[in-house]
Amino acid sequence: MTRPLHLHPDRLFPADPDTRAIARRLYALVAHLPIISPHGHTDPAWFATDAPFENATALLLEPDHYVFRMLYSQGIALESLGIGGHTVDPRAAWRIFAANYHLFRGTPSHMWLQHVWADVFGFDVAFGADTADHYYDTINAALATAAFRPRALFDRFGIEVIATTESPLDDLAHHAAIRAENARPGGWQGRVVTAFRPDPVVDPEFVADNGGFLANLATLSALTGEDALTYRGYLAALRSRRAAFAAMGATSTDHGHPTAATADLTDAQAAALFARVTRPGVSAADAELFRAHMLTVMAGMSRDDGLVMQIHPGSFRNHNDGLFRRFGRDKGADIPMATDYVTALRPLLNTYGNDPALSIIVFTLDETAYARELAPLAGHYPALKLGPAWWFHDSPEGMRRFREHVTETAGFYNTVGFNDDTRAFLSIPARHDVARRIDCGFLARLVAEHRMDEDEAADLAPDLAYNFAKRAYRL
Amino acid sequence: MTRPLHLHPDRLFPADPDTRAIARRLYALVAHLPIISPHGHTDPAWFATDAPFENATALLLEPDHYVFRMLYSQGIALESLGIGGHTVDPRAAWRIFAANYHLFRGTPSHMWLQHVWADVFGFDVAFGADTADHYYDTINAALATAAFRPRALFDRFGIEVIATTESPLDDLAHHAAIRAENARPGGWQGRVVTAFRPDPVVDPEFVADNGGFLANLATLSALTGEDALTYRGYLAALRSRRAAFAAMGATSTDHGHPTAATADLTDAQAAALFARVTRPGVSAADAELFRAHMLTVMAGMSRDDGLVMQIHPGSFRNHNDGLFRRFGRDKGADIPMATDYVTALRPLLNTYGNDPALSIIVFTLDETAYARELAPLAGHYPALKLGPAWWFHDSPEGMRRFREHVTETAGFYNTVGFNDDTRAFLSIPARHDVARRIDCGFLARLVAEHRMDEDEAADLAPDLAYNFAKRAYRL
Amino acid sequence: MTRPLHLHPDRLFPADPDTRAIARRLYALVAHLPIISPHGHTDPAWFATDAPFENATALLLEPDHYVFRMLYSQGIALESLGIGGHTVDPRAAWRIFAANYHLFRGTPSHMWLQHVWADVFGFDVAFGADTADHYYDTINAALATAAFRPRALFDRFGIEVIATTESPLDDLAHHAAIRAENARPGGWQGRVVTAFRPDPVVDPEFVADNGGFLANLATLSALTGEDALTYRGYLAALRSRRAAFAAMGATSTDHGHPTAATADLTDAQAAALFARVTRPGVSAADAELFRAHMLTVMAGMSRDDGLVMQIHPGSFRNHNDGLFRRFGRDKGADIPMATDYVTALRPLLNTYGNDPALSIIVFTLDETAYARELAPLAGHYPALKLGPAWWFHDSPEGMRRFREHVTETAGFYNTVGFNDDTRAFLSIPARHDVARRIDCGFLARLVAEHRMDEDEAADLAPDLAYNFAKRAYRL
Repeated sequence: MTRPLHLHPDRLFPADPDTRAIARRLYALVAHLPIISPHGHTDPAWFATDAPFENATALLLEPDHYVFRMLYSQGIALESLGIGGHTVDPRAAWRIFAANYHLFRGTPSHMWLQHVWADVFGFDVAFGADTADHYYDTINAALATAAFRPRALFDRFGIEVIATTESPLDDLAHHAAIRAENARPGGWQGRVVTAFRPDPVVDPEFVADNGGFLANLATLSALTGEDALTYRGYLAALRSRRAAFAAMGATSTDHGHPTAATADLTDAQAAALFARVTRPGVSAADAELFRAHMLTVMAGMSRDDGLVMQIHPGSFRNHNDGLFRRFGRDKGADIPMATDYVTALRPLLNTYGNDPALSIIVFTLDETAYARELAPLAGHYPALKLGPAWWFHDSPEGMRRFREHVTETAGFYNTVGFNDDTRAFLSIPARHDVARRIDCGFLARLVAEHRMDEDEAADLAPDLAYNFAKRAYRL
Repeated sequence: MTRPLHLHPDRLFPADPDTRAIARRLYALVAHLPIISPHGHTDPAWFATDAPFENATALLLEPDHYVFRMLYSQGIALESLGIGGHTVDPRAAWRIFAANYHLFRGTPSHMWLQHVWADVFGFDVAFGADTADHYYDTINAALATAAFRPRALFDRFGIEVIATTESPLDDLAHHAAIRAENARPGGWQGRVVTAFRPDPVVDPEFVADNGGFLANLATLSALTGEDALTYRGYLAALRSRRAAFAAMGATSTDHGHPTAATADLTDAQAAALFARVTRPGVSAADAELFRAHMLTVMAGMSRDDGLVMQIHPGSFRNHNDGLFRRFGRDKGADIPMATDYVTALRPLLNTYGNDPALSIIVFTLDETAYARELAPLAGHYPALKLGPAWWFHDSPEGMRRFREHVTETAGFYNTVGFNDDTRAFLSIPARHDVARRIDCGFLARLVAEHRMDEDEAADLAPDLAYNFAKRAYRL
Repeated sequence: MTRPLHLHPDRLFPADPDTRAIARRLYALVAHLPIISPHGHTDPAWFATDAPFENATALLLEPDHYVFRMLYSQGIALESLGIGGHTVDPRAAWRIFAANYHLFRGTPSHMWLQHVWADVFGFDVAFGADTADHYYDTINAALATAAFRPRALFDRFGIEVIATTESPLDDLAHHAAIRAENARPGGWQGRVVTAFRPDPVVDPEFVADNGGFLANLATLSALTGEDALTYRGYLAALRSRRAAFAAMGATSTDHGHPTAATADLTDAQAAALFARVTRPGVSAADAELFRAHMLTVMAGMSRDDGLVMQIHPGSFRNHNDGLFRRFGRDKGADIPMATDYVTALRPLLNTYGNDPALSIIVFTLDETAYARELAPLAGHYPALKLGPAWWFHDSPEGMRRFREHVTETAGFYNTVGFNDDTRAFLSIPARHDVARRIDCGFLARLVAEHRMDEDEAADLAPDLAYNFAKRAYRL
């Protein structure tokens, strides 16, 4: 028997009737605000070419490692889902997904997908084995229409601005094309900006098919005309690429390091270290010190060029060796680690942390640092702000814990609103909606417990939903 | 004035009326399901001999280190309670317990004991100084009746199957006796299985009155006919005991290591290490490496013989030196430690983690690992499942935190239901009842917040209460 | 438009109506109990001299690093607030505070200040830019009256006893003056006691303008007539100062170490270590070992003289180098660190932990230790009790987490009630009120969930609000 699908208007609000009523009133103030998406991984090619999405499986299953890691954890072979270049009948993969949709009960993926089904595609029956084909055919039919082209969805989703993330080695051609389209009379006006993610040229241990770090420095040299194999040339090349990114709208950089370690070497020490890490056989300690030093260098460049700096530390990448060898990166096998911030960030903060003109946004995968380390640091250093609950914690319970652990020491005003951090384009409205509902529910609890007046909560709700992100990312 | 005793039918359900109503409906689906107890420490002699329990103190106070550690923490001498072989008038010890029963307010021991008083013994007045003798006499009178013999209680409690835990050096005579009784025409049909706990022969630092590890290997040799003092013979002996345990119904092994460290040595490395740890003067590093290696070896054996593998790491055993010297092990002085899983489990998981036919269940005493490490690992590796909230966390708040931290990343389906892990036989129905109520309350909140439909919660409630444990432990 | 100010009688109670009703009933039992303030940092000179407070800025902004760190974190220069000896117009500083009062929304500072505004000063309009001058003038006018002198406020606040904190080098003249006043016929009867905080003479890395540790030992020698530069004389000098503090009413000592490390050296080892740490160029390892050893020594002295021992570990002091150089200590730049207790406290606990006559109260800034380490330790060792949620965690959410994480393993009776730990004298009633409301709310939830009978909660509420602190601190 087919089950109905219905997005309840009170979803994610606290159950207590008085609290819920307050949450409803607050949510009404923010439900329809435009979306500021200052950090994410959508593909700029979508907006540059506006080509239609291929099919349901290619759009919603294959690229979403949240989804296929859960299926994999329950014994479903990635090959059967067409992951990692394995060719399968996309409808067959879709049916496996549908038959196992119950595995997602209680997860944020379920929340987001329900929203995509009901709101983006208009389904009124639940997804499952019995409706797999109905879903597959309906979605594919929709994707073939003009209304489901990337630019049309962008407009329909109410996105005011979205940031993608590119390597310094990216030529930003898609972004150039989008800007040309923006400038074309009658052209599409969607605002898509890039963000500068220098890990491939900052991490001496960066692995890639092309040979990794050293090969990347060669490319960087070619792209900039600087000799990126000398420390001085390397810094000049980075500055040059930052400027090129800023010209394509970038207002931020992003740094995905294994730890939050920072260092502040002298120029001579740094040049000597650079010489060591650009020779084969880099030691783990040198690699870590170089990454640590470069975070501080990047903070200095941000002070100079105004790009907001984001630090995303603490993920053990590619934990599953065998899977990595067979399927490559980003297959759901990145695992968070306990992460120190107090001693790790100190060199950077002691150098630049007192500068209120600088904006450094820190994220964590280690929630124990929220109340213990990050809120106290952000509640003191003018340059430091806290990014929202991230990745595994970008979920109803995770977001609530973030507010509960952070607010009392950092306040609301040292946080930067929400960002979706996703490549799952269709889920973007769902993700922002979840964040808005959770934040309104948190504020409503403060009001219901008489810890805040409702007019103050009404002042804060649009800040958390819209203003803070716009301001913090200078968008 | 005597206070009344009453188990409220809504106990442990959330207070919000709508949420509570949902919880009630869900609980009605699971309240009377049989008990699957896949991991615990009841004494198989009880079921083999069916001898009556001695008296209230010997049954409910002396063996329960949850209870006497709390009394001890408030300055009550263990000697006065008859702990550690000190002879006291059991009624006098019982009166001390009764006079201090208020110390347990807010603890799970209190929850469980209230259930035992009201439900197992039928008391309607509260336990305390004023009712100490009434309780003592009533309980002793009950224990002398047929209805309170171990097998009768087993049946009355609705236990479908219970696992005890034995050392590889145990001759399993009690289990053999139970199986003979099961096979006897008209014999008792209770299902009692053993579980294989090899710590005494796997941990080179294992201390016991007989001399510990090396003495244990000698016994292991005698028991199996293998030369367990060579690495090859040692492995053969372990395989032989695993087979003997499986013949006595075992479906699982259990490993209680100080850390979650695993290693994957070559055979030559392992043989050399074995030679070192079987000589006097083992270094701490060698002992740790050997335990780490043996976890991986045991996973390999589980792949071969199908025994489910449980890992219980992170307890600092016998923290209180003076108490340990005077009273021995298991006196309430085991203290949890911060525990790493990401790097620790990687050698084992990289070797066996991708095998969906293997089942490894990990527990933790470090709740910070729930959302940060364990849920991401279990939400990826097919072989890995998460055990329920354990020991200090087997409590209403602890179970709620477990669900809140784990579900969003691991889902429900990478968890394995409840296990009581207890030697307190009379508390087993209480413990399962607490778990069922908390899980129903958690599901009810998801329903009340419109994060899950009630029919889905109704589907999950029996899974969490019964099906998952049965399936995960292959019972 | 001016916003109204109103302290809601139900503030901080859970929103659920049944739970709230229970909380109200419990709170009614404790709302008007006297205040026991067993640990804090008020200035004994206030009570010795009873001089009027200077002005609103000097009383409420300048000394409160909770307040000015939040302003600083948002880019407001400390100089503009008159911090660190910078002279500013106090009214101008006050206006900056007022204009930025929204930054404190959701923080405990906001909660406490609202209480001060409404209850201590009688305001009925909200604090903000529009009311800055009204507040400033009204407060200053009040401070000039007899009713707002320190002793009058002490009496009005219902303080039964308050402890201040002094260095062993303090001559305790203010305390002597207070005791003389107490003894004077018709004199003020307020009870103010000191507490012994030996960090300046126990920490070889203690930095101060006078030269720090070694200079302090010279002063200690002068004060006691012992040669505190020999280990034997040093111990005698400490004993002598402890006795002097006890004579001024002290019932406790307090130890603010970077970690919880303890050690138990032999006398010979200790004397050799003492010789090393009293020479220039102390190594970090020796300094840490000496602090660790001295905690155990101090526990032994507490066993002898009955002073309750408090341990406050885990703060990285003066994290912001540049700020420290310009503004000195206690400027909001102390950041908590992950803190181990299991191995750290073991030497001390193995020596003295089994003595029920000794009382050691441990605090933490690392909440992950609550359920994992501290509750199990306090739930076992007779000498160990848990201090309340501390510093960054002395807040509604922080206190709730404390109860939720600690109670199930340690029970209520291994905790010691509330202490305000503040130098913000006017906020003391607010802080105790917040603690009482949160504890009543927590108890109410247990009652509403039928985990505790209401008569038991009614028994516990005054314990948590009053009796436990009085008993644990022997006041």
